[in-house]
Amino acid sequence: MPVLLIHGGAGRIAPDRRDAYRAGLAAALDAGFAGLAAGGTALDAVCAAVAAMEDDAAAFNAGTGAALTAAGTVECDAAVMDGAGRVGAIACVSNARNPVRLARKVLDTSPHVLLVGPGAEALEPEPIDPATLITPASRAAWRRWQARGAKPEGTATCGAVALDQAGRLAAATSTGGVLGQAPGRVGDAPIPGAGTWADARVAISCTGRGEAFLRTGTARALASAVERDDATDLAIAQRLAEVRSASGEGGLIALLADGSIAFGFDTPQLAWGWRRSAGATVEEAWRVDSEPGVTVVRGAGQRDAATLHDLPDRPDGA
Amino acid sequence: MPVLLIHGGAGRIAPDRRDAYRAGLAAALDAGFAGLAAGGTALDAVCAAVAAMEDDAAAFNAGTGAALTAAGTVECDAAVMDGAGRVGAIACVSNARNPVRLARKVLDTSPHVLLVGPGAEALEPEPIDPATLITPASRAAWRRWQARGAKPEGTATCGAVALDQAGRLAAATSTGGVLGQAPGRVGDAPIPGAGTWADARVAISCTGRGEAFLRTGTARALASAVERDDATDLAIAQRLAEVRSASGEGGLIALLADGSIAFGFDTPQLAWGWRRSAGATVEEAWRVDSEPGVTVVRGAGQRDAATLHDLPDRPDGA
Repeated sequence: MPVLLIHGGAGRIAPDRRDAYRAGLAAALDAGFAGLAAGGTALDAVCAAVAAMEDDAAAFNAGTGAALTAAGTVECDAAVMDGAGRVGAIACVSNARNPVRLARKVLDTSPHVLLVGPGAEALEPEPIDPATLITPASRAAWRRWQARGAKPEGTATCGAVALDQAGRLAAATSTGGVLGQAPGRVGDAPIPGAGTWADARVAISCTGRGEAFLRTGTARALASAVERDDATDLAIAQRLAEVRSASGEGGLIALLADGSIAFGFDTPQLAWGWRRSAGATVEEAWRVDSEPGVTVVRGAGQRDAATLHDLPDRPDGA
Repeated sequence: MPVLLIHGGAGRIAPDRRDAYRAGLAAALDAGFAGLAAGGTALDAVCAAVAAMEDDAAAFNAGTGAALTAAGTVECDAAVMDGAGRVGAIACVSNARNPVRLARKVLDTSPHVLLVGPGAEALEPEPIDPATLITPASRAAWRRWQARGAKPEGTATCGAVALDQAGRLAAATSTGGVLGQAPGRVGDAPIPGAGTWADARVAISCTGRGEAFLRTGTARALASAVERDDATDLAIAQRLAEVRSASGEGGLIALLADGSIAFGFDTPQLAWGWRRSAGATVEEAWRVDSEPGVTVVRGAGQRDAATLHDLPDRPDGA
C-alpha cells in the first residue's frame, strides 16, 4: 500500500494565494505518486514530489521563486534520506534548478552526506544562471522586506515523505530559506535529524523557523519517540512545544512504516496533502486552511481514527 | 562541583605521537578549567578548552594544523551549544584562527544558528590568511594522501563538555574535517544533534567518521535516551553500534547534569581527559591509550562505579 504525504510550508497562507497552493499540492501528489503506484521507490517518489514544488514558482519557497537573502541572492538547501540511512544534502546552492535532485546526486555518488556552496554546485550536472531562480514576485517580496527593515521573515519550505510497495520509507525537504536571511545561513531543512529524517520506522520532513528546529533536534527526537512506541500524536505535539520553547513555530509531516500518516503545526496554516492506494482504491486529501493541531490518519482499515490534540499555550502568551 | 571533560579525537594514535596528545590534553584542561574553578560559565570553559586544542598544531585536527581538503585547502567547522538551547555553528571557514570562537560569535550575535563559507567568514573579527593554518606536517600528510589515492582518511576532531558551578551545561566541537575530503564537505561536528549537543540534562561532543554520525543523529539520539533515564553506558554503546551499522566508527564524550562523566569509543584510541573539583579536592585523568569501550564515572561520592561494556561485533566482521 504505497503512501505519499507532502507539505508546502507552515505559516500564514493568505486567502488569495490558497488556490495556487492547492494546485501546487495536487500537482506534486501526481508527480510523486505515479511512480509509487507503478512500484517505484519511496526515494524516487519524494524527489519527484519535491521537484514539482521547486518548479512551482507561484506557491512554494524552494527552487524557482525561492526567498532571497539579505543580499538579494538565492541560496537553496535540500536533503533526501531513505530508511536505510542513506542521505544526501546540499546547502547554499544557487545553480541548481532542482536542489532536491542535487541532494539526491550527493546521496547516489558522494562519500559525503552534506556539501555546501561551490563544492556542492560543482556536482550540478546542468548548472543554471542563478538569476533564473529569481521571479518578479520573489524580487518584489525582497524589496518589501528591505523597505520594512532587517528582520528575516516567512517560510514556505516544501517536503515529502513516502512509503513504497516494498515497505521502504524516504523523506525529502527543500527550501530557499528565510526571506532576508544572512548569506551563508543554513536552516534545518538540509540537516539530517533537524528538518529531515528517515529510518526503518519513520520518515519526517519539517517546516518553520529553522533555527528552532536545529536547536531542538526535532526530527531525530521524533524518531527516537517512534522507536519507543510513544503515541505519535503526543510525540509530535511535544516536538512542536519544544520548537515553541526555542522561540520558533512551524509544522512537520511524518509517515510510519505501517502506513500511518501524521502531521502537526502551530502556525496559522500548513499546506499538506496525502495520497495512498490499496488495490483499486485511492484515497487522498489536501488542505491549506485546516486548523492548527496534530492529526494522525492510521493505516488501512483504521482511517477513522484521526485524533487532534490542542497544543500547549505559548510561553510568551502570543 | 565544576567538571570539564574533553576529547582530542578518535582514531589510531601512533605511539610516537602520544606524548604530544597528552601534553595537548593537559593544556586544554588547564585552559578550560581555570575559569570554571573561578565561577565562570560552562560555555566559556568549553570554548577555552577547544581553542587551546585548535592552537595546538602538534596533536589535534582543528584550527592550526587542521587536515587539508582534496584541493589542499583548510576548511574548518565548529559548534558551541549550551543547556539553554543556544547554539552557534560555522562550517567551511578558512580565515579564523579559532573556529570555535567564531561559532561562539554566531551564538552571541546572530539570529541564525549555522553559517557557512564566506557568510560565516564575514563575522570573523580578526581574519587571517588561510595559509597560516597550514603547517609543514599538515601539508606533508596531504602529500602522502595524494600519493596514496583518493579515499578520505583520518580524524582528530576535538571537543569539550562542561558543567559549571551554577549547574549549566555546554558543549563545543571543532574540526578540520577529514584529510582529502571534497571542498564544501560538512561533517557532524558543527551540526547540533549530530556531533554536538547540549540541553538541561546532558552535553555531548562526538568524533569519528562524521558521515555516520550524521546518518544516525548520534548526539540527539543520546540526549533522547538520557531524557528517558536510560542507563548512560548502554545508551552510548547503542549509539556507537548505530554508527558502526552506518559504516562508521568513532567516539563521544557526555557530561550529565549530576556531574557524571561518560565516554565511549570503538576506534583503537580516543584522546580523552577530565578534571573536576569538590571543595579543595581536584580529581583529574587523561589518557590516549585506553582500551575501546564505554566508561562512566559517576558524580561525587560515586567515583568507583565506573563500568565498561564490550561493544557488539562489527557487522562486517572487521
